[in-house]
Amino acid sequence: MAGRAVKQARAERTRATVLEAAAEVFAELGFSGASVMKIADRAGVTLGGVYFHFRSKEELARAIVAGQPDFVVPPKASTGLQRAIDVTLVWARALAESPMLRAGARLVWEQDRFMGTVENSHEQWTVIVAADLQTAQDEGELRADVDVQAVARLVVNACTGAQMHSYVETAHKDLPDRVEEIWRCLLPALKN
Amino acid sequence: MAGRAVKQARAERTRATVLEAAAEVFAELGFSGASVMKIADRAGVTLGGVYFHFRSKEELARAIVAGQPDFVVPPKASTGLQRAIDVTLVWARALAESPMLRAGARLVWEQDRFMGTVENSHEQWTVIVAADLQTAQDEGELRADVDVQAVARLVVNACTGAQMHSYVETAHKDLPDRVEEIWRCLLPALKN
Repeated sequence: MAGRAVKQARAERTRATVLEAAAEVFAELGFSGASVMKIADRAGVTLGGVYFHFRSKEELARAIVAGQPDFVVPPKASTGLQRAIDVTLVWARALAESPMLRAGARLVWEQDRFMGTVENSHEQWTVIVAADLQTAQDEGELRADVDVQAVARLVVNACTGAQMHSYVETAHKDLPDRVEEIWRCLLPALKN
Repeated sequence: MAGRAVKQARAERTRATVLEAAAEVFAELGFSGASVMKIADRAGVTLGGVYFHFRSKEELARAIVAGQPDFVVPPKASTGLQRAIDVTLVWARALAESPMLRAGARLVWEQDRFMGTVENSHEQWTVIVAADLQTAQDEGELRADVDVQAVARLVVNACTGAQMHSYVETAHKDLPDRVEEIWRCLLPALKN
């Protein structure tokens, strides 16, 4: 049993190493520029080692997109509107430094190659932001006539656009300012 | 003199043909997938014919991005806030059908390869939207405390994100609805 536990721990470490290497390669080369071979080389793992954990480049990309929220955890617990703001700001601040988040941002542009029309990165973030805004509305923090789903989509769309704009102009350095600005413009339409 | 006028008219037609072909190729293959050779083939023009008008693939891409506003002219004259809304909606409605606009949308993702940090497609649209919003504020249509530049950036960022989201989910079919939704969410924060 001890031997099996050791093997499993090693397999989990390899999986994490492969995923981190994949994030670096996707962040640098995009989905089309990446290959399972390049990812294996970066991870220092054999091709078979990669394929043991992930069936394809598509599956690697999906795992990275699906895992994005795990890398965006506000340091202080918050709820409602403040949590929605915190999540977007933590993402904006971490993006320039985190290969995992930079991969997510880069993969957004090519996600039609590996994500479905229903399950996609915009939808994933909209669900997260909408849940916090719904709490805010239930607690009377947001006006009753605010369309929570629509505002969540607007926030996610604006963050996506800001990310691209900020990348072109400052390699993501001013992204936190841009995200703050989005909320500053929006709050008068939201708050009770 | 007549001969020279004919020659000039022919050169202008060729330039327009090359630009349309470039838009089709960029819309299909993106900036990295496109080549001057593929664009020449699509246009039915020699390589020399393309290079007579455009020095490089970069210059073709810049011309297409810079020309986007010419393809987004509202059918009815409007001013201020209504004009800002009209411009975004005309763009959203035309995008699915217009190779020129689809090329612009696709090139946004790779514009760091051929646009500068100052002159870029986000900035170009922000200037246009901000001008209309400024008119609206000067005429008392927008609240005096609205930060016109920040709202213009928000609108452009949100439209960029909506465009990508709508592409993944409906091949741009629901983009007009998404853009309308952006304005519906924003108006309570803007109007006097």
